[in-house]
Amino acid sequence: MSKHDAVEVIHAKRDGGTLTTSQIDWMVDAYTRAAVADEQMSSLLMAILLNGMDRREIADWTAAMIASGERMDFSSLSRPTADKHSTGGVGDKITLPLAPLVAACGVAVPQLSGRGLGHTGGTLDKLESIPGWRALLSNEEMLAQLESVGAVICAAGDGLAPADKKLYALRDVTGTVEAIPLIASSIMSKKIAEGTGALVLDVKVGSGAFMKDVDKARELAEVMVALGKDAGVHTVALLTDMSVPLGFTAGNAIEVAESVEVLAGGGPADVVELTLALAREMLAGAGRDDIDPADKLADGSAMDAWRRMIQAQGGDPDAELPVAREQHVVVAPADGVLTRLDALAVGVAAWRLGAGRERKEDPVQAGAGVVWHARPGDVVRAGEALFTLHTDTPERFERALASLEGGYEVAAAGTPFTPRPLVIDRVS
Amino acid sequence: MSKHDAVEVIHAKRDGGTLTTSQIDWMVDAYTRAAVADEQMSSLLMAILLNGMDRREIADWTAAMIASGERMDFSSLSRPTADKHSTGGVGDKITLPLAPLVAACGVAVPQLSGRGLGHTGGTLDKLESIPGWRALLSNEEMLAQLESVGAVICAAGDGLAPADKKLYALRDVTGTVEAIPLIASSIMSKKIAEGTGALVLDVKVGSGAFMKDVDKARELAEVMVALGKDAGVHTVALLTDMSVPLGFTAGNAIEVAESVEVLAGGGPADVVELTLALAREMLAGAGRDDIDPADKLADGSAMDAWRRMIQAQGGDPDAELPVAREQHVVVAPADGVLTRLDALAVGVAAWRLGAGRERKEDPVQAGAGVVWHARPGDVVRAGEALFTLHTDTPERFERALASLEGGYEVAAAGTPFTPRPLVIDRVS
Repeated sequence: MSKHDAVEVIHAKRDGGTLTTSQIDWMVDAYTRAAVADEQMSSLLMAILLNGMDRREIADWTAAMIASGERMDFSSLSRPTADKHSTGGVGDKITLPLAPLVAACGVAVPQLSGRGLGHTGGTLDKLESIPGWRALLSNEEMLAQLESVGAVICAAGDGLAPADKKLYALRDVTGTVEAIPLIASSIMSKKIAEGTGALVLDVKVGSGAFMKDVDKARELAEVMVALGKDAGVHTVALLTDMSVPLGFTAGNAIEVAESVEVLAGGGPADVVELTLALAREMLAGAGRDDIDPADKLADGSAMDAWRRMIQAQGGDPDAELPVAREQHVVVAPADGVLTRLDALAVGVAAWRLGAGRERKEDPVQAGAGVVWHARPGDVVRAGEALFTLHTDTPERFERALASLEGGYEVAAAGTPFTPRPLVIDRVS
Repeated sequence: MSKHDAVEVIHAKRDGGTLTTSQIDWMVDAYTRAAVADEQMSSLLMAILLNGMDRREIADWTAAMIASGERMDFSSLSRPTADKHSTGGVGDKITLPLAPLVAACGVAVPQLSGRGLGHTGGTLDKLESIPGWRALLSNEEMLAQLESVGAVICAAGDGLAPADKKLYALRDVTGTVEAIPLIASSIMSKKIAEGTGALVLDVKVGSGAFMKDVDKARELAEVMVALGKDAGVHTVALLTDMSVPLGFTAGNAIEVAESVEVLAGGGPADVVELTLALAREMLAGAGRDDIDPADKLADGSAMDAWRRMIQAQGGDPDAELPVAREQHVVVAPADGVLTRLDALAVGVAAWRLGAGRERKEDPVQAGAGVVWHARPGDVVRAGEALFTLHTDTPERFERALASLEGGYEVAAAGTPFTPRPLVIDRVS
């Protein structure tokens, strides 16, 4: 590897230039080895955020992050693999029914997930509300479970893209999170290193999402799809609405319960719709579009896969789920139609109730969260419950209620209401 | 002081906004106290470099840096004060004759200077080639010497604008040096905290200067003059040419010798011209434009002030100056006219010979440097000395010669040559 220095690389990007492959390889490697300091990398990250990177630079940056660690290999499995990544939303429990559903269709799902930070929940936090369930598996355990059960949802090991781990923590404190090249390379380096054969990206758009704007979301999707394809991963992206939260629950245990409803053949229509849409993309990517996943929800085989997946990681699928110690009900102020339910307001309320964490080291409450009893377009009646807030620590109700305030609207009965489509666009 | 957080301030500037006074005060203070980390400040500095700051923000940033430390006070002196700051050039020894000259005119000069880094020399490095001379004075010694001699050239103490000291070191390694708001606030915070009544800025333009471009240099000058005036300091700036090095020497002891020639009433015409131009501005700023500094060079009183200034800081003005152990002569390749002598090429050659330092902790060689025997417009003869290179470490000749190559041009005798004006513009 040729020799560079940090200031030279920073100057090149600062002055609007394009970084060479050699500069990017050197910078990412030197930063991982701590030969480039945090203050040098953060200065470069801000220059990247403001001056951008072209597709080749983003591909090189992603490759350098993959090269910083190990790559997993599922080629020994008897079935194809497919994974899903969501950019994060409120009430987004889709991974829970999706992974066993796709496994029930004969495609293995190696899902490395994260914990939540801020108002979007974390898949591992939700699953950890199931008594006994554990998120940490060795690579060997993961491979064995993929062969036996067909689905794994677990924490990413430290060996995967360590450069990304270090960069992610740095971006968080230096105001350099919101850069498409950095978001795309962060997500895709982990997914490519994970070794999945097919990948579906659920890029959320709206108040509760990272991307508030559909054009930015489409740009992010296009960059990620190109990165996946270049790395030989069959990749597509769906842009999906996150102006309204998914389903009727945002929290941990309450989202697990809602997911189990879906696996039992019921559950909220939007959660079912999105689960099936993503499952169809995963199956198509893995070459199994001959199978209709709706059949596997109906015939109970997705539920079987769920039970085996939870049991394989020490969880008891029949155990009672934790319930928060305190509830608070918000009633509808008048008869009418719910015309607005803001994902961000609901997400922040659930977070403040204890479902999420403020700092990485904080614990979460298994039972905390928000249940809403109506979705936009539904008729509501004065005095009937609109929200139920759950927490173990009732002093949190006040700030949660403050977040909900202004986050929903009840209009006069008969007010026309046009629902937004859930799947906005597809990028492939 | 109201409470902010680093990411909020970074986001505001990153997104093209204007920072409030409260945000700037908080950020600079928190960084000085190490409550804001280097990686957060460097990310903000890059955002400032790329998105700019308006005049109010620059004034606030400068005020916050001044507030981070002590302010000196010369109001007890029996005479007015005036100081000069140069943005740095090659062969720029002007401070050496200028400070005693202005003192000889009855105006006190409290000159806090720095050491050199890179191809532009440092005033303290030059003076330290005088046997016995010391750069470190206490505030009390400085005040006493200003009263008794009228001129002090010494190192800035740690108490003056400590935020700037920390920021300057950070900018150096994070590619955030070249930002007008940061350059202007760095220079002016120290000069305002130093407490001078009048200030002349020598803003260099050309290959050997920090600013290669006259428009950028004018912008920097205007920002600094406005900052000075707002702080009650009588401030003017001269834009002066630095495409050609000043005088006939670039180094340490060899520049002291050339300065003494000027004080003796001789010396290179350009050094004399610039010294007098800056002296006149300093005297005018201090309300003493009734005095012609040329008289004080002619009558020996500037030389007297020099001798007393050097002696007061332990130096022997009569001591032999150090001479480098090895010399190498470059001769003119042909008869003709020297039409070009590039300041950057000469500066880098002197630096490589040992006159400057690569890292802050490196020592410099007192005798090292470059002497040129002709200036642009001068007739040269084939085989006669054009340059003499001086160093204690002859293995350095090769790289120094490589720097000089292409840095000068001898054209056929009679080739028309138009000298550039030394003083390009005045900003007040």
